[in-house]
Amino acid sequence: MRATRLVEALPANTPFIGPERLMRENGHTELVRLGANESAFGPSPKAVEAMSAELERLSWYGDPDSFALREALAAKHRCSVEQILVGSGIDDLMGLTVRAFVDIGGGAVAARGTYPTFAYHVAGYGGRLETVPYTNEGEQDLEALAALARRVRPSVLYLANPDNPSGVLVEGERIARFYESLPDETLLLLDEAYADFVAESRLMEPRFEDRLVRVRTFSKAYGLAGARIGYALTTPRNAERFERIRLQYGVNRNAQIGALAALQDDAHLRWVVAETAAALGEYETLARDLGTTTIPSYANFICIDMGEADRATAIVRALLRRGVWVRKPGAPPLDRYIRVSAGTPPMRAAFANALRAALVECVALP
Amino acid sequence: MRATRLVEALPANTPFIGPERLMRENGHTELVRLGANESAFGPSPKAVEAMSAELERLSWYGDPDSFALREALAAKHRCSVEQILVGSGIDDLMGLTVRAFVDIGGGAVAARGTYPTFAYHVAGYGGRLETVPYTNEGEQDLEALAALARRVRPSVLYLANPDNPSGVLVEGERIARFYESLPDETLLLLDEAYADFVAESRLMEPRFEDRLVRVRTFSKAYGLAGARIGYALTTPRNAERFERIRLQYGVNRNAQIGALAALQDDAHLRWVVAETAAALGEYETLARDLGTTTIPSYANFICIDMGEADRATAIVRALLRRGVWVRKPGAPPLDRYIRVSAGTPPMRAAFANALRAALVECVALP
Repeated sequence: MRATRLVEALPANTPFIGPERLMRENGHTELVRLGANESAFGPSPKAVEAMSAELERLSWYGDPDSFALREALAAKHRCSVEQILVGSGIDDLMGLTVRAFVDIGGGAVAARGTYPTFAYHVAGYGGRLETVPYTNEGEQDLEALAALARRVRPSVLYLANPDNPSGVLVEGERIARFYESLPDETLLLLDEAYADFVAESRLMEPRFEDRLVRVRTFSKAYGLAGARIGYALTTPRNAERFERIRLQYGVNRNAQIGALAALQDDAHLRWVVAETAAALGEYETLARDLGTTTIPSYANFICIDMGEADRATAIVRALLRRGVWVRKPGAPPLDRYIRVSAGTPPMRAAFANALRAALVECVALP
Repeated sequence: MRATRLVEALPANTPFIGPERLMRENGHTELVRLGANESAFGPSPKAVEAMSAELERLSWYGDPDSFALREALAAKHRCSVEQILVGSGIDDLMGLTVRAFVDIGGGAVAARGTYPTFAYHVAGYGGRLETVPYTNEGEQDLEALAALARRVRPSVLYLANPDNPSGVLVEGERIARFYESLPDETLLLLDEAYADFVAESRLMEPRFEDRLVRVRTFSKAYGLAGARIGYALTTPRNAERFERIRLQYGVNRNAQIGALAALQDDAHLRWVVAETAAALGEYETLARDLGTTTIPSYANFICIDMGEADRATAIVRALLRRGVWVRKPGAPPLDRYIRVSAGTPPMRAAFANALRAALVECVALP
């Protein structure tokens, strides 16, 4: 039994290894979870309460239109319900965007080493991805990306802002100029998963054009990663295109309910953003104490320089042996960093202790 | 901005209209939900308890491998963990199967008027669906399906058993003979969403071959439709193919936890199955009292004959005006039936009253 030509040709890879598998394979009963940029500060208690009250009705499908949530999101973003599409997380929405806009053999562009799910979808739908490396300062190279786009004229260009894994923020006005410089046939897929950690005024202004799909999530600042829910801001025309191919009943009912309640709990969001800033500040101090540097981050994680890629890999392993789970970027020049998510004070302390011990161990490595 | 050739060519349709939209459009504040074959008997209280206890950790992604749940499912089905793939419901798994096996322009076969999501995915991935009508008795015509398959040699043939919307069960041995009669290049996608309402001995025996993908769900007897979780039983080779294209973090964390707890609550499952049988028996009596018939059903819904298609459509509308939501099959010969899900005793009473009134009204229609 033969699969499609496309699927037979795909590599047998797993883009991410989850902490549960690391625990099974390494015999840990617990891990300090600082590897997936989850919120260590949890979901809003109001979201928990709202979901708890509705668990007995989980035998009902969720509203396939996610209407109540889209109404609340439309109010938040001062746009219409038709400009919003809810999906089961950004990975889902990114897959829909690639599927809707990248023909087989069609072009796509992204920074080499940015959030890998875009590349995964481009490969999975038979597109042709071209990349440019990050700058030595750890930023997505907007000039090189725009130049490549003008040459390749891709259907979709992916940009994460704030970026993952670097944490770098590109100011909204610069994003707007970059977007305007792209060819007419290129859609900008702007991944704003970490936008809730940034002042609105620093993000690109609201724009609804067929060439722009912005994706947001409840997985990060809102602390609902396990619920799988996010949304796209785009034109009604694009939303209707996604409507033709999406899983109509793909979004968990309780995720819709939790997201709606979370949106209404500003106090929790502000607290998470403040705690996250405190955590990153502490990591910066720790890095300085250890004689190294960080990349200034506007997300809920930060990259700490380990000097070289092999050493960063060894440190990730040494931390894991001590029960602390972080990840590291895979592509140069960021591959000499480890990426650690904002933790609670006890998680930060566990990380600091484990990192100090790991550094002693890894400096001694041959 | 142009979408792909494939997506531009798709019809702008919504395969299902949810009850929430019907309520918004018709001004209902409540509906008796008997239209989506959800469980009126709710999830297992143990599942609710397990999910409730974990809501605060919904800020964590679920295990991308769904390992604990797959271990429990492997024990239930006496197979290996590698023979199970968990997805966010059967619609998701069906999409993966079509995407993995149906090339653009490739063939697919199903009964005309069976569960529509298969046709939706075949169109969405650019396949070419050929169908055969149901028999006059309301059964999928296995002989005609097999003959069509020998002629078309499709990559995938879809069969639901028990079937939706007819409720008909084909005995396991007959399914096995049908499967064996299919061409070597045809994969059987066997949708067993309603299998939990049937004695195991009447289903096809366990078989793990590359040409067979069986899909199951927690949406029906287990009462977790809103959680979006189901699984495929197939070979490790096929599971690995799906691994290359699936959303790695697509399954809600709490859905995994709820499904695992639900699997361990046999008493609740048995109670749901018994209540469902009672509901269907009551609907059969009601139909007899009203001078009409039903198709013998092995699922959690039943089709009641309204004589002709226009009348069935009018009855569905008349029921909706009375706050009772059911659906009807769209294709002949089943389009003269209404399909009603098993309800609780008060839901059944509401349905019976509304149906009696609707019949009076619709008989009087011009």
